Amino acid sequence: MAQATFQEISASDFFYRNRDIAGFTNPSRAIFAAIRELVENSLDAAESLKIPPDIYVRLSFEGEASRDTQIYKLRVEDNGCGIQPRFIPSAFGQVLYGSKYKLKQMRGTFGLGGKMAVLYGQIMTHQPAYVTSSTGSAKIYSFKLMIDIQRNRPLILDRKVLINKEQWRGTIVEFTIEGDYLRARSKILDYFKQTAMVNPYANLTFVDPKGRLYKFNRGTINMPEPPKETDPHPYGVDVELLQRLIHITPHKNMQEFLKNHFHRVGDITAQKFQVFSGLTTASCKKHGKLAYQDINWSRGPNCSRCGEVLTLSAYKNPKKLSHQEIVKLMQHLKKFKEFLPPDASCLSPLGEELLKAGIIKELNPEYLVVKQRKPSTYAGHPFIIELGIAYGGDIPKKGSFIIYRFANKIPLLYDEASDVSYRVINAMNWRRYKVSPDMPIAIVVHICSTKVPYKTVGKEFIADRPEVRKEVANALREVSRQLQHFLSKREHVDREKRRLSVFAKYLPRIAEFSTTLAGKEKQPDIQKLIKSVQKYDTEKK
Amino acid sequence: MAQATFQEISASDFFYRNRDIAGFTNPSRAIFAAIRELVENSLDAAESLKIPPDIYVRLSFEGEASRDTQIYKLRVEDNGCGIQPRFIPSAFGQVLYGSKYKLKQMRGTFGLGGKMAVLYGQIMTHQPAYVTSSTGSAKIYSFKLMIDIQRNRPLILDRKVLINKEQWRGTIVEFTIEGDYLRARSKILDYFKQTAMVNPYANLTFVDPKGRLYKFNRGTINMPEPPKETDPHPYGVDVELLQRLIHITPHKNMQEFLKNHFHRVGDITAQKFQVFSGLTTASCKKHGKLAYQDINWSRGPNCSRCGEVLTLSAYKNPKKLSHQEIVKLMQHLKKFKEFLPPDASCLSPLGEELLKAGIIKELNPEYLVVKQRKPSTYAGHPFIIELGIAYGGDIPKKGSFIIYRFANKIPLLYDEASDVSYRVINAMNWRRYKVSPDMPIAIVVHICSTKVPYKTVGKEFIADRPEVRKEVANALREVSRQLQHFLSKREHVDREKRRLSVFAKYLPRIAEFSTTLAGKEKQPDIQKLIKSVQKYDTEKK
Repeated sequence: MAQATFQEISASDFFYRNRDIAGFTNPSRAIFAAIRELVENSLDAAESLKIPPDIYVRLSFEGEASRDTQIYKLRVEDNGCGIQPRFIPSAFGQVLYGSKYKLKQMRGTFGLGGKMAVLYGQIMTHQPAYVTSSTGSAKIYSFKLMIDIQRNRPLILDRKVLINKEQWRGTIVEFTIEGDYLRARSKILDYFKQTAMVNPYANLTFVDPKGRLYKFNRGTINMPEPPKETDPHPYGVDVELLQRLIHITPHKNMQEFLKNHFHRVGDITAQKFQVFSGLTTASCKKHGKLAYQDINWSRGPNCSRCGEVLTLSAYKNPKKLSHQEIVKLMQHLKKFKEFLPPDASCLSPLGEELLKAGIIKELNPEYLVVKQRKPSTYAGHPFIIELGIAYGGDIPKKGSFIIYRFANKIPLLYDEASDVSYRVINAMNWRRYKVSPDMPIAIVVHICSTKVPYKTVGKEFIADRPEVRKEVANALREVSRQLQHFLSKREHVDREKRRLSVFAKYLPRIAEFSTTLAGKEKQPDIQKLIKSVQKYDTEKK
Repeated sequence: MAQATFQEISASDFFYRNRDIAGFTNPSRAIFAAIRELVENSLDAAESLKIPPDIYVRLSFEGEASRDTQIYKLRVEDNGCGIQPRFIPSAFGQVLYGSKYKLKQMRGTFGLGGKMAVLYGQIMTHQPAYVTSSTGSAKIYSFKLMIDIQRNRPLILDRKVLINKEQWRGTIVEFTIEGDYLRARSKILDYFKQTAMVNPYANLTFVDPKGRLYKFNRGTINMPEPPKETDPHPYGVDVELLQRLIHITPHKNMQEFLKNHFHRVGDITAQKFQVFSGLTTASCKKHGKLAYQDINWSRGPNCSRCGEVLTLSAYKNPKKLSHQEIVKLMQHLKKFKEFLPPDASCLSPLGEELLKAGIIKELNPEYLVVKQRKPSTYAGHPFIIELGIAYGGDIPKKGSFIIYRFANKIPLLYDEASDVSYRVINAMNWRRYKVSPDMPIAIVVHICSTKVPYKTVGKEFIADRPEVRKEVANALREVSRQLQHFLSKREHVDREKRRLSVFAKYLPRIAEFSTTLAGKEKQPDIQKLIKSVQKYDTEKK
């Protein structure tokens, strides 16, 4: 460990040496990862301004590299918010450029994605990346850059300023990459299809190396509310976070500190918490200092014995807390049971209508039920599970369920068997719902969160966290019950149809024979008879 | 994306915010991760000097934290190589302190482990870490430190120098951590058991919070050769690596550059490659410039037509290669088929004897076969698979095989279902070997490599790389064939025993009756008869 060969390495150097863990495992996975990272940045950029995204992706063949790999130029253009020129070099040429202490539901989570794509292209082809962007101002800025991987700094090779005649707003990223497109092709097309499925307000265009155009037109211009920034929830804090908040806070007392830096903490909650944790004491004129359990809270602290309004001792100054007090504060923040659960207003789920529309467009099922669960949390982060189960129609029978996984409206296409959703689906007692894997069934699971619990930096699959597992399992049970009901009704309908067809087959003969036997001329009206034995209308769905 | 809330974050900040991906997912996993990272550093430290490791781990209870978690002090002491004082602060207080361009088989791979443990302890308890170390010199150095997470710098709170009277050499790390030991306990004990199994030359001692002592004594003082540093293999290069090598090389010509910076490239290979890639041209006095295929190589280039020794044009200076030429160089390095495959001399596998001994000690099987595969490579990194299959003895029947996974002599205890070994074992056609999962079978898989293809920074499981999968599958088939042979022989032996027991049961009666019938007194000797029908000796194993 301690040898003279020690040296500090930069973050970009770390991810260069360990690019596997960022998803750049092999030439085919790398092409996929590069495209997805840039498309996701573009979707986030457009949504931040509530603009329906228009994204153009072009992968053009540049030459052979080795037996299995080729050189491609990748160009991604969007109509998003654009990037201010002073941020462009670092946004693409510096790893770990991130956001401050607020949390927000975004597709790109690690401050890494786009840069990893540029870095990978650079180490394989040694070509610079070109980034052109405008925020809609009078100017368009165009940079030619590379990453100084050892120092984690962008190298600006050229910089141009153009007049923005048409007031364009957006970003164009173009760079060269080596990869195995042939092997990646089907996953890339799946990626576009599924991204279109859960972002039906986006126009996606993909031109592949053979010049084939794949166009996914938007089905609606209705966009969901963009995700809002939110403050950390008390249950998710640690000492480091508290110290940073204390360091930056302009507030000089704990009451304002708690109200302004934590999620859903109002006046009463802040006061309650301070009494609970001993940061302040409540006194009654008659009964003196009161314990937490002897206080009634209704528009403020009241004595539970005499109803008098209590006075609270002076609020402490957060900046004056000792280390010990900060540790205790953290422990109390986790213990206090009266914080409101995280509110999903910061989240931007699909919504049942949109999810339905997307699944219907893609799979054209015979039957579909979707469910949006109420918000839940893990480690202080809010999340929502939305799940749909679809039967029949264009869904093939595959011997096992077809699973679609999404997180923050991006499709997850690898490592299905490691994903929490797969595990829940496999652990489910399907026989109880009279559902079996040879039926033509697709299950669609979407999780949105301010911090998606990915297991890996490469965002391949969701970790098996108990809170998430529980929500997925509950959602799955709800929709499965409805599917069971549908299937059972359908079975009855089928049985009834078969029964009626037996009648319809033999009654006419019986009528005929009876008529002859009775020596009559006219046959009785069998339609009336058939109708009378019909249990219910089999044509109704 | 481009909003005023952008800022650069340090590597430690990144891993602080994303500690899940480094294995510090929840309070029980965190305790496990902290212990394993420090134990693995200690094992590496002792092995680097080929010293049998003595490692003492003590986890002591300090107080309650929340309903499910407690505060513990973790102390790990070893007799390894120690750390020089000028490196101690960064070794524990700075994330991404790594090694230069050489590759070596080590347990700690990311330059992260120990620091993540210290970081996690710090953010939960705000207590400093104490590191005491000596390389066996006259002095012992003791530091009290914390990590400035935002700046990724160590904060030295105190520093002591002590006289090293007993010439002690080693390292002691002590810090406070919050976690859920109760839940982690069984995994931690498994960790020690399995670490002892594959490092039988190590003494491991663990004292748990209740004061219980777990001692794993070494079974041998024979240690394998420590892993050696090695140069990168041509098949694994990229442009960035080439640029760095070119930058640091003291050599002014390509011949020396290739020979000295790449794995197993000697004079002839270097010359061959240069002609192949056009870096140099070979000329025959008679036939002029020759193409690669017209050259015979035996102690140097010879004309294939006339046998003349060829002259090579002047070697280029690596520092004078253009960017284009560097890219071409990389492509040729990957195309050239005559580089020798990576040599495993840099690797330190367990060896079949050691693996057997470890499995016998732990599982006491009735039958055991182990196999060490020849070295293989993935992405230019050499690796070796060692696999054992054990039957019966103390191995319980569990309805599925018990799988033990190891990488660079450390046990992998989580996410079994995502691991490549699990997938290979599941995909195996066991019926063909007449082996079924309800048999009492354990499979032990060990991979050692200069770069273990972990899927995650938390080193939970091995990625499903085709080269690795292939090696594991082949090893599994080899040992399964032998197991099948054993089981089938055992079945024959059992059948024979049953058959003999039938004879042994009835022959005496028949003898008795026959004797009476024949009117004789003395019964014939049936033992001789039994022996004559015995097909083979059933007592032999």
